[in-house]
Amino acid sequence: MTLKKAGVLGATGSVGQRFILLLQNNPGFEIHALGASPRSAGKAYKDAVTWKQTAIIPESASDIIVQECKPEGKFLECDVVFSGLDSDYAGKIEKAFVEAGLAVISNAKNYRREPEVPLVVPTVNPEHLSVVENKVKEARAAGQKRPGFLVCISNCSTAGLVSPLKPLVEAFGPIDAVTATTLQAISGAGYSPGVSGIDILDNIVPYISGEEDKLEWETRKIMGNIAEDGKTLAPLPFANMKVSAQCNRVAVSDGHTACVSFRFANRPAPSLEQVKEALRNYVCDASKLGCSSAPKQTIHVLEKSNRPQPRLDRDRDAGYGVSVGRVREDPLLDFKMVVLSHNTIIGAAGAGILIAEILKAKDVI
Amino acid sequence: MTLKKAGVLGATGSVGQRFILLLQNNPGFEIHALGASPRSAGKAYKDAVTWKQTAIIPESASDIIVQECKPEGKFLECDVVFSGLDSDYAGKIEKAFVEAGLAVISNAKNYRREPEVPLVVPTVNPEHLSVVENKVKEARAAGQKRPGFLVCISNCSTAGLVSPLKPLVEAFGPIDAVTATTLQAISGAGYSPGVSGIDILDNIVPYISGEEDKLEWETRKIMGNIAEDGKTLAPLPFANMKVSAQCNRVAVSDGHTACVSFRFANRPAPSLEQVKEALRNYVCDASKLGCSSAPKQTIHVLEKSNRPQPRLDRDRDAGYGVSVGRVREDPLLDFKMVVLSHNTIIGAAGAGILIAEILKAKDVI
Amino acid sequence: MTLKKAGVLGATGSVGQRFILLLQNNPGFEIHALGASPRSAGKAYKDAVTWKQTAIIPESASDIIVQECKPEGKFLECDVVFSGLDSDYAGKIEKAFVEAGLAVISNAKNYRREPEVPLVVPTVNPEHLSVVENKVKEARAAGQKRPGFLVCISNCSTAGLVSPLKPLVEAFGPIDAVTATTLQAISGAGYSPGVSGIDILDNIVPYISGEEDKLEWETRKIMGNIAEDGKTLAPLPFANMKVSAQCNRVAVSDGHTACVSFRFANRPAPSLEQVKEALRNYVCDASKLGCSSAPKQTIHVLEKSNRPQPRLDRDRDAGYGVSVGRVREDPLLDFKMVVLSHNTIIGAAGAGILIAEILKAKDVI
Amino acid sequence: MTLKKAGVLGATGSVGQRFILLLQNNPGFEIHALGASPRSAGKAYKDAVTWKQTAIIPESASDIIVQECKPEGKFLECDVVFSGLDSDYAGKIEKAFVEAGLAVISNAKNYRREPEVPLVVPTVNPEHLSVVENKVKEARAAGQKRPGFLVCISNCSTAGLVSPLKPLVEAFGPIDAVTATTLQAISGAGYSPGVSGIDILDNIVPYISGEEDKLEWETRKIMGNIAEDGKTLAPLPFANMKVSAQCNRVAVSDGHTACVSFRFANRPAPSLEQVKEALRNYVCDASKLGCSSAPKQTIHVLEKSNRPQPRLDRDRDAGYGVSVGRVREDPLLDFKMVVLSHNTIIGAAGAGILIAEILKAKDVI
Repeated sequence: MTLKKAGVLGATGSVGQRFILLLQNNPGFEIHALGASPRSAGKAYKDAVTWKQTAIIPESASDIIVQECKPEGKFLECDVVFSGLDSDYAGKIEKAFVEAGLAVISNAKNYRREPEVPLVVPTVNPEHLSVVENKVKEARAAGQKRPGFLVCISNCSTAGLVSPLKPLVEAFGPIDAVTATTLQAISGAGYSPGVSGIDILDNIVPYISGEEDKLEWETRKIMGNIAEDGKTLAPLPFANMKVSAQCNRVAVSDGHTACVSFRFANRPAPSLEQVKEALRNYVCDASKLGCSSAPKQTIHVLEKSNRPQPRLDRDRDAGYGVSVGRVREDPLLDFKMVVLSHNTIIGAAGAGILIAEILKAKDVI
Repeated sequence: MTLKKAGVLGATGSVGQRFILLLQNNPGFEIHALGASPRSAGKAYKDAVTWKQTAIIPESASDIIVQECKPEGKFLECDVVFSGLDSDYAGKIEKAFVEAGLAVISNAKNYRREPEVPLVVPTVNPEHLSVVENKVKEARAAGQKRPGFLVCISNCSTAGLVSPLKPLVEAFGPIDAVTATTLQAISGAGYSPGVSGIDILDNIVPYISGEEDKLEWETRKIMGNIAEDGKTLAPLPFANMKVSAQCNRVAVSDGHTACVSFRFANRPAPSLEQVKEALRNYVCDASKLGCSSAPKQTIHVLEKSNRPQPRLDRDRDAGYGVSVGRVREDPLLDFKMVVLSHNTIIGAAGAGILIAEILKAKDVI
Repeated sequence: MTLKKAGVLGATGSVGQRFILLLQNNPGFEIHALGASPRSAGKAYKDAVTWKQTAIIPESASDIIVQECKPEGKFLECDVVFSGLDSDYAGKIEKAFVEAGLAVISNAKNYRREPEVPLVVPTVNPEHLSVVENKVKEARAAGQKRPGFLVCISNCSTAGLVSPLKPLVEAFGPIDAVTATTLQAISGAGYSPGVSGIDILDNIVPYISGEEDKLEWETRKIMGNIAEDGKTLAPLPFANMKVSAQCNRVAVSDGHTACVSFRFANRPAPSLEQVKEALRNYVCDASKLGCSSAPKQTIHVLEKSNRPQPRLDRDRDAGYGVSVGRVREDPLLDFKMVVLSHNTIIGAAGAGILIAEILKAKDVI
Repeated sequence: MTLKKAGVLGATGSVGQRFILLLQNNPGFEIHALGASPRSAGKAYKDAVTWKQTAIIPESASDIIVQECKPEGKFLECDVVFSGLDSDYAGKIEKAFVEAGLAVISNAKNYRREPEVPLVVPTVNPEHLSVVENKVKEARAAGQKRPGFLVCISNCSTAGLVSPLKPLVEAFGPIDAVTATTLQAISGAGYSPGVSGIDILDNIVPYISGEEDKLEWETRKIMGNIAEDGKTLAPLPFANMKVSAQCNRVAVSDGHTACVSFRFANRPAPSLEQVKEALRNYVCDASKLGCSSAPKQTIHVLEKSNRPQPRLDRDRDAGYGVSVGRVREDPLLDFKMVVLSHNTIIGAAGAGILIAEILKAKDVI
């Protein structure tokens, strides 16, 4: 198999480090270019980075000379560029990379709400990638070079929430009301400075800046449709899917938990057993395409009353499988459940890798 | 002031230890009798107990000889008996104490649903105590000895939830729908064995046996009315106040956090500012009665976006004040908010002490 | 390769669960018999166990019918039996198994101090296994069946301490004084009840029952010699190697940290660089024998000033590699250093597996 | 009683906040001037500070207009100025304040090693304050204004270590060897950024920059003598008191634990019971002087094998009492023990307050 050349923007940051770790063992990609701040540029990666992962620095990355985050040098040879840039920098840099004809998959929030940019959880709405697939195929049909494009990874807590909602909507029609209270891991806040130890030890912080709005809005885009033009995405109207989120930071290293309740638009609602059955039977497209990172089981429906738990369940399917437990009837809406997803895998860098695998399988990159 | 004689059942357990700590500095009570298992009976308290509090053992308790939990000996001289008994034992023992004519205030769950037993959060529904007040006054009027009676303390997470709901209902009429996702402290699980360290470090347990049912049911009793007979309590019907709870155990020592949303029955709903105003202005009866443990501020409405936090806010008004933050509009119901209450003070032993202070102020004990 | 049949005693406990997890992917062993309490006997393993590991229950174990811990049935067919029994039960049961001719590798403390029982950290003193090897070979030479025997796994904190001491003694001669203050993970305390959450959150427990004595005594046996008879072990005399231990329990899930200082008997002492060199160059016998679980690097000498850290370094070489950092001169003794070892791998179940691999490589089982 | 006017430098930082909290209830001082960065200057304190304490902002401070940290305005009216400045700024600012004739008590490390600056743990070596007392009295005798002077508070971990060593040296003569392995709370690292949550959850950091050197050096100054000139301090020579420290950061909010072993210079060493007796009987001068913050019991000798524990014991005597447990014989040196001290009280801001109380009692300020 031909290895695709991968670049990483923001390579020294915590998301960038995750991209590099995941790429190193991926059978379809090789690390080709690493970009960071001017302060790091010119150094070997191992000397530029403060490595904070539990696995050691991949040899395939450690001696690469870090570049600045400009669309030049080795980046121009990349088949795909993963961006772990902070939102302060992502806006300009990602735009420049796309304009230079590069395929960018970004974890930053800057362009998530742009109509022509797919916002993708790879196990949930890979069909939204057709927006860029169409663009690429049109250009190729016209004998042109592959154009640059951008795909956005969703917010980490959004990825968990939509994972069980999608199969349910596929099986039983629209869900018109959702409440989600999240208990989010500190790795989601990054590292510099991230969450302070004194703020999280024996404590909860019942607020994450911008998070509730992201969860409420992104869910509607991901659960939404491709517009008739085939080129843009159409989020569900608020009235069609009301989402109410309350987000908390808790003393967990990895793994976001969400306590969710929801209501189907169609009456009668399905039975509890039908709901669990639909979750269990769901097979994501990435699995059907044979993507190497796709989970064997997209949704794990756990029957023990005290599961899922972050420490015990976050690593199912290497963090690409989402766990759902305590599915039961809800006195207000139809059902409630607990959803656990690995925030740095299916909720961030891992999602980017799996999106790239799908794009590769579909010959877009 | 005459000191009332207080007994403590289950005195060596974690709730019992809290009763003793709170009694020692209380200006209205003195510790008179301590009851525990036959294994402990006959020993000095300091030798019978494995003391697990941050404050040292009160001298007023340390040399008291522990009795068995039977209505005899020094217990018969008590004006009030606080029960921190485990529910496995509370049923029979508390019944025997009441039948022996004692005034029992219990933290156990056994009799909470009995119609004639008030289930009381002292800063919320002290008016329910009139059920026992009436009984006592009738007996006295008939020239009889004060009869025994039982008052139950609510479940710890219930106390937090009803604290802001009560002032809102008083101000704006019925609330017909409530969702509450709790993040509960480990001290609520007691100590032997309580929550295991390996279960809670870097983890969440999204389940507490029986808790969601308690939260849903007890809320309706506490928010309910005194029946027309003046002798029993009438919980709100389910249809009048639907409560949906999801309960989690988190790595916090003390202080239960609840993410709550709610809807008023009356339209139009009050404004956000009116809601906060009603919470701020609420003064509980215990304060009006001058009870020494009553909070100066019953509900603390916090305006900083990242508050309340357990470590920073649980000790407001010595744990008798409840903090409410992030009051805001909710896309589904009317409003949402974060509620923090100290689970061992207003949610357990402390509530018992303040109930006793109210009963004393009203000349019931 | 012929698979050796393995039995596990105490299979439902936390050490037993670890044995099963490690065995399932081991290329040299298959799980053949599982023993637990009479309450569990007769049930399929998956129904008998409260599984508490982050990996899911191995299929190879889940349907095995649990036996009682008696040397009968399938246990009699086992090439090796791993004991994760609690010390309350290990004494009698392990004795019965050895007498029935079985090869037992035990994590219990009961027989560690018996002169004829090797106490082995497999990356440190595998040569002590010659005591049982000799016994087996003698029997075989006499045409007899392989006799039963027992090998003990060391205490978890001892394993970490002796790991760097052994290469240093090999290189530079006796170490006559050692101080070790440990910061031990809660997984080392097991689960029922193990360490209570309320005892370890925002806290340290500066005491582990019996631990300091084990650390001081076992170190001298492991660093000691085989007696001249070739059949027993001779711990170093106290005067030849004084060990002073202070043991603490801290809020870490896995991985014991020890702050160690030590002095060589010979003058002049080696240089700091020589010490680090000796640690780096040490290759354990298990690696030389090609054992599948042997670490690639026995001792990882870390140069960053803030390493090793449990969360980042405990999984090196799948928990079989020990990390040593901050090696520096000591104002009192010669050198000090920080040692990190994975308490459930090289310090418990994993050590048992690697001991079995060595015995297999040497044709003892 | 006349209230002394107190100023606080670095008032918005975490040490500054502690000074303010402690001053507010102190019967001898009133908050008069608050200094912070130019960014904060001109604002009311409550608007300038990000308040991170569990108690609410003292009313006596909240409306004070913050000044720049210059010896002008209200600072010139202060009887004493407490400095919670970061060491990056403390050097110049404190010098300017002293030169302006102010009495400065500083938590910064900058001048701790200056011979003429007393380095004081108020319950340990208040006699070193005579260096400034003499200076002040000389000036007064000469009819001059009180000169400016500086007193330094010790490093937080040093305060715990010297607390039991001092009474032992008083009782039994010199201690010539000490080892101390510390498990230090995260509050000791301040807040911006302090210790990151991801670094301390399920983890230990076995390194604190500069800490071991401070512990080794400051101990010798605090345990040292006043030079013959009566104007400078003479630290003990290294050879007379060898200290070896290993410092770790652990997941504890407040309270530093130290595992200590030590040897007396004189033979025979005292008995274990004599050592405990000397610790129990020690009464610090601040208690004798009647200082309001002085601990009732300077050293609490705990007899339970698993004490002291940070969560249970750090608040003894409001954080001014130091707890010592597990005193026992040591195989290498003479004795070992566990010492727990509150790092922000006796180890930082609280020490400053008690030093000021002593200076006031002695009529120096």
